[in-house]
Amino acid sequence: MPIPAPVLYPPFNIVRLSHIVLTVTDLATSRAFYVDTLGLQVTDETSEAIYLRAMEERGHHCVVLERGDHALAKSLSFKVFSESDLDKARDYFASQGIECDWVERPYQGRTLRAIDPLGMPIEFYFRMHKLRPIHQQYKLYRGVKPLRIDHFNCYSDDVETSVAFYNSLGFRITEYTEAEDSGQLWAVWMHRKGGIHDIAFTSGYGPRLHHVAFWVPTPLNIIDLLDLMSTTGYLANIERGPGRHGISNAFFLYVRDPDGHRIEIYCSDYMTVDPDLEPIKWSLRDPQRQTLWGSPAPRSWFEEGSVFPGVEPRRPKLEASPIIAP
Amino acid sequence: MPIPAPVLYPPFNIVRLSHIVLTVTDLATSRAFYVDTLGLQVTDETSEAIYLRAMEERGHHCVVLERGDHALAKSLSFKVFSESDLDKARDYFASQGIECDWVERPYQGRTLRAIDPLGMPIEFYFRMHKLRPIHQQYKLYRGVKPLRIDHFNCYSDDVETSVAFYNSLGFRITEYTEAEDSGQLWAVWMHRKGGIHDIAFTSGYGPRLHHVAFWVPTPLNIIDLLDLMSTTGYLANIERGPGRHGISNAFFLYVRDPDGHRIEIYCSDYMTVDPDLEPIKWSLRDPQRQTLWGSPAPRSWFEEGSVFPGVEPRRPKLEASPIIAP
Amino acid sequence: MPIPAPVLYPPFNIVRLSHIVLTVTDLATSRAFYVDTLGLQVTDETSEAIYLRAMEERGHHCVVLERGDHALAKSLSFKVFSESDLDKARDYFASQGIECDWVERPYQGRTLRAIDPLGMPIEFYFRMHKLRPIHQQYKLYRGVKPLRIDHFNCYSDDVETSVAFYNSLGFRITEYTEAEDSGQLWAVWMHRKGGIHDIAFTSGYGPRLHHVAFWVPTPLNIIDLLDLMSTTGYLANIERGPGRHGISNAFFLYVRDPDGHRIEIYCSDYMTVDPDLEPIKWSLRDPQRQTLWGSPAPRSWFEEGSVFPGVEPRRPKLEASPIIAP
Amino acid sequence: MPIPAPVLYPPFNIVRLSHIVLTVTDLATSRAFYVDTLGLQVTDETSEAIYLRAMEERGHHCVVLERGDHALAKSLSFKVFSESDLDKARDYFASQGIECDWVERPYQGRTLRAIDPLGMPIEFYFRMHKLRPIHQQYKLYRGVKPLRIDHFNCYSDDVETSVAFYNSLGFRITEYTEAEDSGQLWAVWMHRKGGIHDIAFTSGYGPRLHHVAFWVPTPLNIIDLLDLMSTTGYLANIERGPGRHGISNAFFLYVRDPDGHRIEIYCSDYMTVDPDLEPIKWSLRDPQRQTLWGSPAPRSWFEEGSVFPGVEPRRPKLEASPIIAP
Repeated sequence: MPIPAPVLYPPFNIVRLSHIVLTVTDLATSRAFYVDTLGLQVTDETSEAIYLRAMEERGHHCVVLERGDHALAKSLSFKVFSESDLDKARDYFASQGIECDWVERPYQGRTLRAIDPLGMPIEFYFRMHKLRPIHQQYKLYRGVKPLRIDHFNCYSDDVETSVAFYNSLGFRITEYTEAEDSGQLWAVWMHRKGGIHDIAFTSGYGPRLHHVAFWVPTPLNIIDLLDLMSTTGYLANIERGPGRHGISNAFFLYVRDPDGHRIEIYCSDYMTVDPDLEPIKWSLRDPQRQTLWGSPAPRSWFEEGSVFPGVEPRRPKLEASPIIAP
Repeated sequence: MPIPAPVLYPPFNIVRLSHIVLTVTDLATSRAFYVDTLGLQVTDETSEAIYLRAMEERGHHCVVLERGDHALAKSLSFKVFSESDLDKARDYFASQGIECDWVERPYQGRTLRAIDPLGMPIEFYFRMHKLRPIHQQYKLYRGVKPLRIDHFNCYSDDVETSVAFYNSLGFRITEYTEAEDSGQLWAVWMHRKGGIHDIAFTSGYGPRLHHVAFWVPTPLNIIDLLDLMSTTGYLANIERGPGRHGISNAFFLYVRDPDGHRIEIYCSDYMTVDPDLEPIKWSLRDPQRQTLWGSPAPRSWFEEGSVFPGVEPRRPKLEASPIIAP
Repeated sequence: MPIPAPVLYPPFNIVRLSHIVLTVTDLATSRAFYVDTLGLQVTDETSEAIYLRAMEERGHHCVVLERGDHALAKSLSFKVFSESDLDKARDYFASQGIECDWVERPYQGRTLRAIDPLGMPIEFYFRMHKLRPIHQQYKLYRGVKPLRIDHFNCYSDDVETSVAFYNSLGFRITEYTEAEDSGQLWAVWMHRKGGIHDIAFTSGYGPRLHHVAFWVPTPLNIIDLLDLMSTTGYLANIERGPGRHGISNAFFLYVRDPDGHRIEIYCSDYMTVDPDLEPIKWSLRDPQRQTLWGSPAPRSWFEEGSVFPGVEPRRPKLEASPIIAP
Repeated sequence: MPIPAPVLYPPFNIVRLSHIVLTVTDLATSRAFYVDTLGLQVTDETSEAIYLRAMEERGHHCVVLERGDHALAKSLSFKVFSESDLDKARDYFASQGIECDWVERPYQGRTLRAIDPLGMPIEFYFRMHKLRPIHQQYKLYRGVKPLRIDHFNCYSDDVETSVAFYNSLGFRITEYTEAEDSGQLWAVWMHRKGGIHDIAFTSGYGPRLHHVAFWVPTPLNIIDLLDLMSTTGYLANIERGPGRHGISNAFFLYVRDPDGHRIEIYCSDYMTVDPDLEPIKWSLRDPQRQTLWGSPAPRSWFEEGSVFPGVEPRRPKLEASPIIAP
């Protein structure tokens, strides 16, 4: 299948990915990881949940950690441009037979929850409690100095269906890989906010969250995090990297949180605001698409991910080629 | 005057600043500076003009150097979202009594030229000749490794009028300084593409171009450029920096091209795509607004700039306070 | 005067500069600066003194802060190769009419105190209490991530006498400036440990300490310190920089401690272990000797320094040329 | 075996490692790698050999590439303190039954060639043709910006014998690994110039050269080299890294030259000039000794190396444990 044409005038205006809600099994253990090690800032904290923001964000949260019995990716959230976009979203979803409902979320205005065609829970809001800037309070910077949430990456058992849906919402494709024999889309990167992606999909048992990513200032911050994690008991949590992706050109590191949720630390991709930017196609036969420098990803990186609540991952429509496997 | 409210649904959709046309008095001398020293890539070259792009850009040019008798800033160009936005722009300008006309520009589709209320020549296009990506051809990286054009900064003799006009076009204010006694706007940073600014205005003899800026990967690239310029005959072209701005939080360096046009090398400001992001106000009494680390800018930085063709700079409506002067 | 020939087989073997004792007027205030801001590690602490080491040092201290009524540089200390070198030092000083005596110093073995020909108190020891390595305890890194003490820089009212003395002790000259009219030495950099200097002398009211320097990993750590100091109440303590020295090629920043003692943060000079390395001569007329990028040092940097106890600074033998003054 | 005690007053004074002579099969191909890609500077060039220096070196060469039929490590060279040290070296070697002879080497003064107890050809000189400094000619910096040769690393079939010999020459041990069952030395790092090593030995089929290393300014230069090599046809020449060694704490990358000679790019180890610095012992069971961040080295890194002329590598006395193998 050729990639779909961009929808330049989507049914409602999504500004960017906004935050993720993760279920974790021990809040204190997760706090040590997300706050003391990665360096996210606590904006609220109860016995049931911790709210976090990154250093340049003024919205109340980019990560919500909720206490639970099992590690889950509870929902992926997006900010829309204005309140009227929420109503347009509701109408659009209704017209498409997409299940959706209004929900209450702390520190947010009206919030719409929907289930995407593959079963992923996605949420939309237009207003979040604003906090005062801390990006120049340099004494607060710690760990990897996370500046902002950057993207979600998801396994999909049916990438073409996932891409068609998010394309219809106005997400624009920046880079992609195609299965050469069948011509089917294998993995696709899609954006709203002007970088390589707000969300990406890769063929695999899905739907599952592959990772959530945070933007940091330079590769040296990633080296700092590696030094820190490898000498504070987090050696086994380092999964892949550091390296440069061929796709996106970003410098990356993948680490796992105490429950196994995968976190990417990411910087230096490129600007994509032009609506006529041509997507870059990569061959699955090109190992540099994953790591420009050639080193392969470990098997866990291809296979493991976070389950969404109540959605049993399904076998992917596309067979993994031997090229993909580590 | 309070800053104007953002115009969330502007009369036409400007995507970003795109390129600048500079008149220079000797193309070979300018080429040594822009190409061999800064590291921009030549995309076309004649006896009358040189076209340049930065490393992650796919459009044909972000700088056009034209041979001329005098150093001039010929025009500031912006990319609009679609062809229909050009027509909407023409209609809007007409309705506002803004002089505009269709012009022919090499490597561009239909292009609209207008004169802003202060006399600055601005141009709009929607389609530019596309070149293939070179951001992963690392052997081409040189000099300061410029990734993309980032913004224009202009002197205005009437900042409030300038801001009102660009605000009406949908540019959103991110940071600003106010003259404390009069409450008048002194300097304003305004964006379309999601950073601190596509264009900024500072009170001064105007209209004139203060500088055009290029985005680079990290502060270390700026240090590399300083080392290079100071040992290749460009010592006197280093004007200010390196340092970190209070406003924008960016790491910066200002250099002058062989004709005196001012170039900023810039990185690490923050993302501003949220339409409800609150502008940050700075006091003119706070010297950290200019350099977070406290070192003052030289007098030339406050006084010198590039003239636009046929527009005699006028004395600014606001008096420079002693705080501003070096 | 031509620079003196290196003494390749000196009377005793000095390994490197080792530590400084500074009198400060408020230990808590100094602790906030040296520990919380610069990032040195406390190795002992009493109501009268704080002992500090840098991250890669295994000796007990590189800085001793002693409580006192006035800010003073109490002594400059050097490590010698073996215990027998202490006795050779004593004999040598005696033969030269240099006043010296054995003193007791906490955490050190036998220690010899001498007064150099200009009146500076210098101390020598061969054994210091060893601490276990912390250079891979990355959670301890803070502030500018100081790795080790690098050098002392002193005003001398008679640079040629200072240089002759330290040259006789085996310090080898790496770079120097000469007063062009008189041919007299203006400033000299001298090393034992294989870098540009363990100690340097500049003409000025002396003897006084100009600064003590600490080595850090990269220029980005210096940028981090600037960001931190300028947003935690230390803006006025930033005196000069960041920049690259022409002499030494090092990247630098000068800050002042709460009592005015000057600290240089320093990195990326070059290796000088070859005994036949030819000193590099700089002209006082070359402003790039101080800052390769051209920006001048402030007047305070040329004039202020820390007094040694009981030694009244004397007018320098050389007149400051207008070129030197800011 | 316990590590030998340091010999503080060795029979002659070696200043540092100096240069390597490598036989390569095609000078043009090697030039493209060493000059155009790594960034070493050509100081002489004939149809038979290329002489190279790094950016802060003033001696004529740190690498000599000689045309030959087979890739060989021809010799490892060291600089001694003075001419008399050459004679002392000859006498010492004679007294120890070490084969040695005076040889002629272009651009060097008197040069002594010896064969170490394991069969490695080593050379000593005191004077080399000096070139003027280029460390501030920033336009010459290219590739990884190599500043200086840093160390040799060799396979030895009998590490204890190798270490005993170089220890007797005054090389001081900084870090080492021991085979836990037998207590035998597995790998040892030894220095003269004040870093972690001028030479290191690891148990393996030997004698062979494992790699020669060059010092670069920061980890970002290593990232630049990876980007360059992976997009200019050298992808397969990237063997291991980037990463941080546990041993030495250095940031590293291993690449292979066109003939398979292994080059390490290296920075940020620590200063070791103190004669009483205690060596750091690592367990072979600790995978972080090799890569602090945990990722294993590939099999080729443990097995491949450059042969010395006329010396058949021998099976190592120590069995490789399963822990060592990749």
